[in-house]
Parts: sequence; C-alpha cells; structure tokens
Amino acid sequence: EKGSVALVGAGPGDPELLTLKALRMLQSADVVLYDDLVAPAIVDMARREAEKIAVGKRGYKPSCQQDHIISMMIGLAKEGKRVVRLKGGDPMIFGRATEEISALRAAGIAIEVVPGVTAALGAAAALQVSLTERDKARRVQFITAHAHDGKLPQDIDWRALSDPRASSVVYMGARTLGVLVERLLAHGLDPATPALLVERATCADERRIGATIASLPGKVAAETLSGPCLIFIGAVFAATEGEVAPAKEAAQID
Amino acid sequence: EKGSVALVGAGPGDPELLTLKALRMLQSADVVLYDDLVAPAIVDMARREAEKIAVGKRGYKPSCQQDHIISMMIGLAKEGKRVVRLKGGDPMIFGRATEEISALRAAGIAIEVVPGVTAALGAAAALQVSLTERDKARRVQFITAHAHDGKLPQDIDWRALSDPRASSVVYMGARTLGVLVERLLAHGLDPATPALLVERATCADERRIGATIASLPGKVAAETLSGPCLIFIGAVFAATEGEVAPAKEAAQID
Repeated sequence: EKGSVALVGAGPGDPELLTLKALRMLQSADVVLYDDLVAPAIVDMARREAEKIAVGKRGYKPSCQQDHIISMMIGLAKEGKRVVRLKGGDPMIFGRATEEISALRAAGIAIEVVPGVTAALGAAAALQVSLTERDKARRVQFITAHAHDGKLPQDIDWRALSDPRASSVVYMGARTLGVLVERLLAHGLDPATPALLVERATCADERRIGATIASLPGKVAAETLSGPCLIFIGAVFAATEGEVAPAKEAAQID
Repeated sequence: EKGSVALVGAGPGDPELLTLKALRMLQSADVVLYDDLVAPAIVDMARREAEKIAVGKRGYKPSCQQDHIISMMIGLAKEGKRVVRLKGGDPMIFGRATEEISALRAAGIAIEVVPGVTAALGAAAALQVSLTERDKARRVQFITAHAHDGKLPQDIDWRALSDPRASSVVYMGARTLGVLVERLLAHGLDPATPALLVERATCADERRIGATIASLPGKVAAETLSGPCLIFIGAVFAATEGEVAPAKEAAQID
C-alpha cells in the first residue's frame, strides 16, 4: 500500500464536534500526529493500533518544530503509512497548512484535507449568537493576533477591522489584546462596541469574559488564562456583556 | 417531556462532513425541519420515526416563509416535540438564526445550537488551499452578495473587500457577480487577483471555475449553474486558475 497524509480538522474542542469523516480517518490511521491543543478524548478516538505522537503547541514553539513535523510526515508516508495530521479547529484557518501541503506535494505524497468546525463557529454556537445579521453585520472576518515572533502582526488592515458593521474574531488574541484594542480605538472603533473573550471554546471548562472593547483588556487582565482564547468584537455580541467566567450554560438539551 | 429546538448545521454538502453531535441530534429528533439545500442523504440520517419537513430554499422565497417556519417550530416544541432545524453549512453564518433564536426565546422554548463546517471551509479543504497564509492573507472574510431583495447589498465595505492581503469568500454570489466585480475593480482591486467560483462545494458533483477577478464573470456566464455557489478571491487562490468545470479530484484517499 502507498502511504498518504490527511490533514484533519479536530474541531473547536468538544469531541462531539468532530466530523464523521474525521472519525473515519482517525480510525483507519497508522500514525496520528496531533497538536497539543487537541483534546485527549479526540486523540483517543484514533484506531487502537495507531501510533499517536504529540507534535507541539501551535504558535508557541520555534519554527524548526514545523520542519521536523514535515520531515516526519514525509518519512512515515514513504514507509507506506497512513498518516493523520490532526489540527485544532479547521486546517485551512491559521493552521499553517500551506507549508505542509507544499512540502508533501513536492515529495510526491498523496494528500487529503478534511475540514473541521473552526473555533469561532463553535464558540458562536455555544453563545447562541449569529455572526451575521442583516443591518448589524454583513461581513464576518477572522484574523490572528499572533505573528511568527509572538507579537501583533504589523500588516493588519486596521480600517477593515474597525468597521462597525462587521463581526470580527481574533484568533490567539489574548497576549496582544492591549495593543490590539489601542490600535482599534485609534482607528475610530466606538469604545462602547461589544467585545467578548472566550477561552477553551466548546470545552466543558469554557470561560467567557463579556465587556466592551474599551473595558475588555482590564477585565481580562484580572483573570488567569491558560487555554486558547478567541476575542469577539461587534454589535451582534451586545447581549453577551454580562458574561463572566465561568459561564458554561446549564441548560443543555439531552 | 418538554419540547425543544436545536438549530443544527448540516455542513457544506458531503454527508460525511456532518458532526457527531449533529448526527446524535438527528437520531433523537421527533421532527426535522430542513432547508431544501440540505442533501437528501443527510436528511435520511435522521431517526426513522422522525417527521421530515422541507421548509424552503434559503434566500429565494418570500419572508413570510421565515415567519411560518418560526411558528411551526414554536408550535411543535410546545407539543413536547424535539425539533431539529437543519440548516446548510453552519447556522451562525448567513443562516438568519437571530430571528429564529429571538422568537424561540420569547416563547420560552429551550434552544441548542450545533455548529457545522461552513461551506467556505469545506470548499477550501477540497481545493487544498489554506485561506490564511503568512505574507499573503492575514485576514479571512465572508460576505453574502444576496440581500433581502435578491440584489447586491448596498452597505458592503468595499475597501475592506478590496484589500489585496485578505482572502474573501462571497456566499450566494453567482447572481450578482458582475456588479460585485465592477465595484471591487472600481475600489482598486488588481484585475489580475486570482478568483474562483465553486458550485456545490464538497458534493460529488462539485464544479470549479478558476480565473482572475476580471475574467471570472465572463467565464461564469458561459456555464449553466444550478446549485449554491461560493466566490473565492485572493492571492492564495493563484494555483486554482486552471480549474475548469467539472473539477472533482480523482485522487481521494480511501
């Protein structure tokens, strides 16, 4: 059998938000290379005989880590292994998939990409807030606030991000939140714009900090955050200002 | 038993891209109200005893249709039924979920929202093109090109949409493509910017038309389109210019 690599989205956190296809790929894998951010309960869904290898937290390790992951994938596929590269959320959103796909293609390895529920949509569902709403939000945008060097990227289109009629979601936004908010306010975003931080979206220990864009950095500074965080900004989040950590909803339908 | 309503994302088209949670909700439903755009194979995954009711194509019926759907959901939930409202893609992206959630809350009905793989991410995975890429696309944005009246919305932030360093995805964009492209070019978008139309993303009969933003309307006009379409615009799509309909990849990993 010829080896192959599948880049598979593990979804936002809740293991039930895995797709049927992702489950099938995990259950037919020889090797699973998984991001540290992927929940153990999801890794455990892989075929029992599969070798499971943690390959480092996204965005917080030196880039040689990325080269090492690529070498491993190519080596394993060339041995004839079915490799699953399991990534948090969706592989095509801030997942550095381009580097992996290019290298695998250059090595002649068969590739498949299995999409996943991206964290922003998992969190929006849990909040029960639509990211689009006629008259309030015609446009949805996602950015990452975490460049290669761990700082806020320099080439952000601040005007696009300050548009009051868009819903914005900032991935990996907790560390650079103060600078981000300064720049948004400097570009004219109303300080009263609703804003919300969600930590560990869709996980059992999800936390929410609701505020306005101006007051969010202060409220966030008062909390200890350890999981991945999303920042939501926009008029559609008006009803979430009262949210405080922990904010897991009791009323689930069984 | 008290009735309830779950807004459930059916994913982009391929039935395997349903989440495990969506499947569980479908298999415990008493009634499934589904958009016409949802594939029959997905509706068939619902519990055998569940009543399955088609509730009209999204965006192409009068708005009284929406009021009727809401009344049905409330009535059925008040009878004690477990209602699943099955929507194409993700419920929180251009799914008009706000109107449904507000009405259900006002009626005191228990609600749950189950996210799904949104069409843009399903298509990106099939294309094997990451929507974000360091240096090329720091920002991803989704808009709908289909307002209430079937025309292009008037309040689009054209400057944000013409940003050469963003990846843009236009939902329901086929009908208004000509006007959209005119406006983008007028706002300074390079006519050579890669652009692509994807019809029926992730379905067995998916079609792709690759072009530049300037040449896309002409290429699209030469084709007959009948399914839902997405328009992709941005530098990351450079490799897709050669795509022509039909473009389903032969090399799937089994």
